[in-house]
Amino acid sequence: MAEPWATLGIDLHVEPTGPGLRRGLTDALRDAVRSGRLAPGTRLPSSRALAADLGIARNTVADAYADLVAEGWLTARQGSGTRVAAREVVPPPGTAPHPHPRAPARPAYDLRPGSPDLASFPRAAWLKAARRALTTAPHHALDYGDPRGRPELRAALAGYLSRARGVRTDPERIVVCAGFAHGLKLLGTVLRARGARTVAVESYGLDVHGRILAASGLDTAPLPFDRLGTDPGAASGADALLLTPAHQFPMGVPLHRDRRTALVDWARRTGGLVLEDDYDGEFRYDRQPVGALQGLDPDRVVHLGTASKSLAPGLRLAWMVLPPRLAEEVAAAKGGVDTCGVLDQLTLAEFLTSGAYDRHVRAARLRYRRRRDALVAAVTARAPQARVTGIAAGLHVLLRLPAGTEQSVVQAAHWRGLALHGLARYTHPAARAEPVDALVVGYGTPPDHAWSGALDALCAVLPG
Amino acid sequence: MAEPWATLGIDLHVEPTGPGLRRGLTDALRDAVRSGRLAPGTRLPSSRALAADLGIARNTVADAYADLVAEGWLTARQGSGTRVAAREVVPPPGTAPHPHPRAPARPAYDLRPGSPDLASFPRAAWLKAARRALTTAPHHALDYGDPRGRPELRAALAGYLSRARGVRTDPERIVVCAGFAHGLKLLGTVLRARGARTVAVESYGLDVHGRILAASGLDTAPLPFDRLGTDPGAASGADALLLTPAHQFPMGVPLHRDRRTALVDWARRTGGLVLEDDYDGEFRYDRQPVGALQGLDPDRVVHLGTASKSLAPGLRLAWMVLPPRLAEEVAAAKGGVDTCGVLDQLTLAEFLTSGAYDRHVRAARLRYRRRRDALVAAVTARAPQARVTGIAAGLHVLLRLPAGTEQSVVQAAHWRGLALHGLARYTHPAARAEPVDALVVGYGTPPDHAWSGALDALCAVLPG
Repeated sequence: MAEPWATLGIDLHVEPTGPGLRRGLTDALRDAVRSGRLAPGTRLPSSRALAADLGIARNTVADAYADLVAEGWLTARQGSGTRVAAREVVPPPGTAPHPHPRAPARPAYDLRPGSPDLASFPRAAWLKAARRALTTAPHHALDYGDPRGRPELRAALAGYLSRARGVRTDPERIVVCAGFAHGLKLLGTVLRARGARTVAVESYGLDVHGRILAASGLDTAPLPFDRLGTDPGAASGADALLLTPAHQFPMGVPLHRDRRTALVDWARRTGGLVLEDDYDGEFRYDRQPVGALQGLDPDRVVHLGTASKSLAPGLRLAWMVLPPRLAEEVAAAKGGVDTCGVLDQLTLAEFLTSGAYDRHVRAARLRYRRRRDALVAAVTARAPQARVTGIAAGLHVLLRLPAGTEQSVVQAAHWRGLALHGLARYTHPAARAEPVDALVVGYGTPPDHAWSGALDALCAVLPG
Repeated sequence: MAEPWATLGIDLHVEPTGPGLRRGLTDALRDAVRSGRLAPGTRLPSSRALAADLGIARNTVADAYADLVAEGWLTARQGSGTRVAAREVVPPPGTAPHPHPRAPARPAYDLRPGSPDLASFPRAAWLKAARRALTTAPHHALDYGDPRGRPELRAALAGYLSRARGVRTDPERIVVCAGFAHGLKLLGTVLRARGARTVAVESYGLDVHGRILAASGLDTAPLPFDRLGTDPGAASGADALLLTPAHQFPMGVPLHRDRRTALVDWARRTGGLVLEDDYDGEFRYDRQPVGALQGLDPDRVVHLGTASKSLAPGLRLAWMVLPPRLAEEVAAAKGGVDTCGVLDQLTLAEFLTSGAYDRHVRAARLRYRRRRDALVAAVTARAPQARVTGIAAGLHVLLRLPAGTEQSVVQAAHWRGLALHGLARYTHPAARAEPVDALVVGYGTPPDHAWSGALDALCAVLPG
């Protein structure tokens, strides 16, 4: 009987030409695994053998295998070759339910901002913390809980945020939430119930924030942006301001100290609330990060942080540090009961207090810094018309382009299987800013093995 | 130097008399641990020594120690005695933040319905499943995810619900949510957006459901309840019906088969939606549980299930099985992104597919059945005026009382440190039902070691 993979090349229906070849091969293999044509445990032909079979370059096959190993469809072990993953793999979200559809093409490389390097999630350390947390938790911790979140986590966060970000808080001011979006939704509900109408936002940012606030019945109005950062001077009519002071997203600059003072003055003068979105405060590479704005006035600034960039979005854990009265209202808006799983909360508390979080952040900082340095060097050398701007921080850079080229660069990247975002999609529709051509390049997203390929693909589409 | 516990008896300020002695001692010890007067690791005097020191019964001290071990403040090991737990214990929710306040008195026994026996949460099996799930998950599972929840969990639930509850579904119809309340909130939002005004509910149920629906702008109207269960005949003006068909909460009876048919007829005739709250369908002790109502008409019945009773509320995991169109609307109402932590979702999927869930439910069924039998026997023997009604199922019984006695029994229980709920708090304010005097006794809540004490305390307050 022939080996099950003997006919693999024939079965794959790959057109062995053109720039989309690797992606086509990856999709075809994924389909074969999903449909069951390649059963779990099946050993795949070597990349050399399949390449010969298909008449294509061996590297293309090796890259496709590597992508699918990273995605969990295949496993690769020294001496045992590449095999179909033993565990039943369920189609990823967004794919169709039936057994034989063709998966939507995934990009070969992804440099969109928003996610950290998920391949470096500290699985072993997290499991160790989970074991310790669940073993020592009192039984009642597993019951319906305080809407503010587990006290162990709020105590750990209070210590960490005070030490690492200069936040002034105790555990009673903290409310745990299921990601930044959930926190913003709760704040929107409370602000609207207080009679608020308008939240001033930055000229550049995520449009989903506006949609979340709109769902609570709040309008957003963009504030001007200049070389000192966002200018709160024009916020006279707003009930609250939402900003990213430590590292403006996506422009990549910190808010100037004069503007920080102006923000707090605005809040004191008008009674408005400042919402500080501190999404990546852990990651500054050239110096100590600037402290949280909240430290200047804890009764007028809400500090929002998240584990989505420092650990993984899938944890769905974020936190708000609030003035006491507002903490009560937000807890009530949460429905009077905790909505975040206690096991992950207890695990994160253990992760913070044991020092595992600091160790993980230090390692991640080093890895991201190297990537950023490589990106700056590659762009400088290979695409002198483009220019990296902003501080050495976070998981993304703003890459300025020659005027009028943004859209065509994004389009060219798309055709080459490189997912890339231009600045246009992060510009508030009502912003009165001069249009800037730029890319918002997220260097956290690719796994390590795909990083240099992603960087090459980027340089290839930049104006030379 | 004196042993740190040498002065413990003096320090505790316990009034060594009266029925509240055990609770007073427990509170005083808890305060001493929390305030740091008893440092982590400190060995406590033997129950014999402390009892002599305080001039009270040794059992009272032993019981207080056992309570605090169960709560996690103390640890007890053979040969090592009873010690203050090594880990910093953060005050449980609801207690004050400062170091020296007196904790609000906890009831000595808790027979309120709503929570399972948390001491029997399968910690080791859960950790094993978590390890397997996190070790084998693809990296992208840790990213922002499908708002319907992880595909692995939806696939596992589809298989389980079809096998165990007769639900007709595929993974595409399932949306994971953070507990039943979260699911109901999402459904309320969607129903209101579709133009719904009124949801008919049962005459007996949880008032929080009405509050959740009211927050979405929906009124609730109670349906009559008779010996066949809830009567949907009067629901002509409602846009949806919310019911507990398998085991009415709190009345403890299943919906009669004629009423099941009438419900589906109502939905077909009016285009209304039936919301089936299947909160404890796993636990039937005398026969196979009645299948899900959803099986009769998957396009008009939404099935809601939860891990809160079968595992623990702290997981914050529940699920809805929805008509396809509604599944899309609910996913959109969730904010277009998953809000439940993926690690617990992957773990529950592994727990279900590995058979660990079935094993756990079987063991829990046996334990709860024994408790229910003991409760029925004790009430029959010791309180002949009270009568257990309803089927052998779930985690609670309805205990009928002589007319006019409910309030005084609940009050008497309160004074004896027994938390107990009367039927009055589960009666819809607009229900036109004859008042029934009864207790809703949750026998799942106490840990094993407190169960017989709780049962004794209950019998002591029942009319003899």
